[in-house]
Amino acid sequence: MPTAVEVIARKRDGHELTRDEIAWFVRGFVGGEVADYQAAAWLMAVVCRGMTPRETADLAEVMAASGQQLDLGPVAARAVDKHSTGGVGDKTTLVVAPIAAACGLAVAKMSGRGLGFTGGTIDKLESIAGLRVGLSQAEFLAQVERVGLVIAGQSAELAPADGALYALRDVTATVESIPLIASSIMSKKIAAGSPAICLDVKVGRGAFMKTIEDARELAGAMVDIGTRLGRRMTAVISGMDEPLGNAIGNALELAEAVATLRGRGPSDLTELAIGLAVELLQLGGVAPDESSARGQAFRALRSGAAFEKLVEMVAAQGGDVAQIHDTGKLPSAPLVAELPSPRAGYVASIDAEALGWTAVELGAGRRKKGDPVDHAVGIVLQAKVGDLVRSGEPLLVVHCRERAQLEAIGDRLLGAFGWSELPTLRPPLIREVMRGAARAP
Amino acid sequence: MPTAVEVIARKRDGHELTRDEIAWFVRGFVGGEVADYQAAAWLMAVVCRGMTPRETADLAEVMAASGQQLDLGPVAARAVDKHSTGGVGDKTTLVVAPIAAACGLAVAKMSGRGLGFTGGTIDKLESIAGLRVGLSQAEFLAQVERVGLVIAGQSAELAPADGALYALRDVTATVESIPLIASSIMSKKIAAGSPAICLDVKVGRGAFMKTIEDARELAGAMVDIGTRLGRRMTAVISGMDEPLGNAIGNALELAEAVATLRGRGPSDLTELAIGLAVELLQLGGVAPDESSARGQAFRALRSGAAFEKLVEMVAAQGGDVAQIHDTGKLPSAPLVAELPSPRAGYVASIDAEALGWTAVELGAGRRKKGDPVDHAVGIVLQAKVGDLVRSGEPLLVVHCRERAQLEAIGDRLLGAFGWSELPTLRPPLIREVMRGAARAP
Repeated sequence: MPTAVEVIARKRDGHELTRDEIAWFVRGFVGGEVADYQAAAWLMAVVCRGMTPRETADLAEVMAASGQQLDLGPVAARAVDKHSTGGVGDKTTLVVAPIAAACGLAVAKMSGRGLGFTGGTIDKLESIAGLRVGLSQAEFLAQVERVGLVIAGQSAELAPADGALYALRDVTATVESIPLIASSIMSKKIAAGSPAICLDVKVGRGAFMKTIEDARELAGAMVDIGTRLGRRMTAVISGMDEPLGNAIGNALELAEAVATLRGRGPSDLTELAIGLAVELLQLGGVAPDESSARGQAFRALRSGAAFEKLVEMVAAQGGDVAQIHDTGKLPSAPLVAELPSPRAGYVASIDAEALGWTAVELGAGRRKKGDPVDHAVGIVLQAKVGDLVRSGEPLLVVHCRERAQLEAIGDRLLGAFGWSELPTLRPPLIREVMRGAARAP
Repeated sequence: MPTAVEVIARKRDGHELTRDEIAWFVRGFVGGEVADYQAAAWLMAVVCRGMTPRETADLAEVMAASGQQLDLGPVAARAVDKHSTGGVGDKTTLVVAPIAAACGLAVAKMSGRGLGFTGGTIDKLESIAGLRVGLSQAEFLAQVERVGLVIAGQSAELAPADGALYALRDVTATVESIPLIASSIMSKKIAAGSPAICLDVKVGRGAFMKTIEDARELAGAMVDIGTRLGRRMTAVISGMDEPLGNAIGNALELAEAVATLRGRGPSDLTELAIGLAVELLQLGGVAPDESSARGQAFRALRSGAAFEKLVEMVAAQGGDVAQIHDTGKLPSAPLVAELPSPRAGYVASIDAEALGWTAVELGAGRRKKGDPVDHAVGIVLQAKVGDLVRSGEPLLVVHCRERAQLEAIGDRLLGAFGWSELPTLRPPLIREVMRGAARAP
């Protein structure tokens, strides 16, 4: 048996740790034999020296094995999972999961809550009256089998070693590490049981990965982990410079997702949802190629089958389906105010992170874990990058509680827009697609 | 005020910390506002990213200021201090400190105990019956003023921040870092109050620094810290491949130091003691140049003045001076056995670290802090590198408690010798001398 100091020293000196060393160290930390200060030193050594792909996959597997591991049983063969690294206005799961389920896949997804400037799918779903996200394992499995679609909060028993290590990383400046981020995300995806996983890695000023190089490295690391652990993997790298779609805020985003499922959504959100669905349908084995997958996804949207899947899921989880059929019944803010554009021109950029933080300030998100969120408030963009705007035309609509809030944030919201005198091109939303070596049979 | 996470992240990202950030972080750790896991992550970031000379000096000064700082009062102007980074058979302090005191300097030295394969001056001194090393600050100051020489155990109130950080480094694999080692040593030297400090940095297989490059880096870092903090500094880099002198073990080493003070010591120990004295006499301002310093040092030895200084010190600290006048009265082991050479030839190398660990096994040293030591036991070399030995001639003499010990270690002791058919040259003991920019007036 190695000692904790030996394992830390080996990583400090840039050596590759064995699988046994990683397993012993992580289990020792969870079990209390490895002290938190030793784990902290090890995490910093990993941040500074990195980990090989093999070490990274071993860490993900060891963390996945530290708790409950889901067996999806009869639906395992057609089960798929999806994960986004987080962005502003990212309600894609609420569109792509129903499309995939409508095409015959089983989507068994555990989602997180929003933190900082990015939102979380679970918070958005909870805009619906009565909807339960705290499902038991039996309920979760029964629903994916019956409906083909379930989105629940992440169980605390899923990868508890990751939870414990993440809490330590948060207070020791050891969050920013590709191998640690990749293994953390993948440990939960591995434990959640789906044999096929599509990752949406966001890149840009509204994402955690600010450059395409970093995004590519993270996507590559996660695809590699999954492939090494026998999963069929695809990662899509998508732009997150401006917010995705127009709405930021829980009920507002849910309403926009519903509109998209009914064919009336913003073009960028529709484009990304279809793009991810195309990958999921191929990964899940219901489409032999991209063109067939694209056809199936569009049909699921146009026929209303995807929308009906969402309704079915909401009903199964106890939510008020009337709020989905008429999103005007979702929680709404008392004050809805338009902010007019202070100038004319083409929108050249919109600072997603700045808008994300402003939405947090309105109450739509959390500064720290456990804070309550206000489902009704948020921001709706009236123009996106590339749009021509006349002076005085509405640029944003703010949904808030008090006029004082509006005055406090007005200038910041308008300042998030960059302008151009000449027409600007919107960059393609999907930048790259990375596929694992092992594919569906 | 920065947060702990911000300070850790700045070091993690390779930035230079401000003096305020270092002071705030170290004081926060001692005060409990910075958690030990945060300090551990920061230490590992320092190990991986390094520290600039300015940061290193700031850290040393902040740690020195965390506790008692000695004011040497009337003797401050002629006070000198000396520190060795530790080796096997290194009893130099017991020779050089009396020489310096005999030449009119005030030597106020706090020393450590032995740990691992290296010995400590305090353990060697405690071979003398009645000798007290736990002096109060008042006793320490009174003795240096009256005798000009005091060697005491290190006070726990000296640089307590260093003590706390070192305890954490020991269990988080963050010991091996030049800036951390240099600032740790220098924090105690700065707090101990001498305006002039001579460092003996050991290099070789029996030292912590195995290469001349590492030794040079450590020596340079310590000289730089001292110079930045207004001390007159010299570092001597000396060889520690074979043990220094012939004796290893507490009373045996003390006896060898006494013999050296009487002009009958081994040539390497004498050479190093004179070399360090030459630096101290110049640093302390009693010799204008090297040749004058060398003359004074030799006279102090030949006249018996240096020996008398040691006697005076032992008497002042309550020790039995009869044991100094006749070292045969020091504690002795019941079994003294010669190990004959298994072959003829020139001694090409002697593995100091291997001999050091064997002495620990006999009881002369400690595996962990707080272990007791046996002052009587040890090893005396009968041949050193460069010597021609005939087969069957005594190679070592072992002083131990039981015959079984002898059988257990015999092969290992003989195996520590490397041989050559051709005459081998002994490398010079003093490899380099590094002097700080600021010198004695």
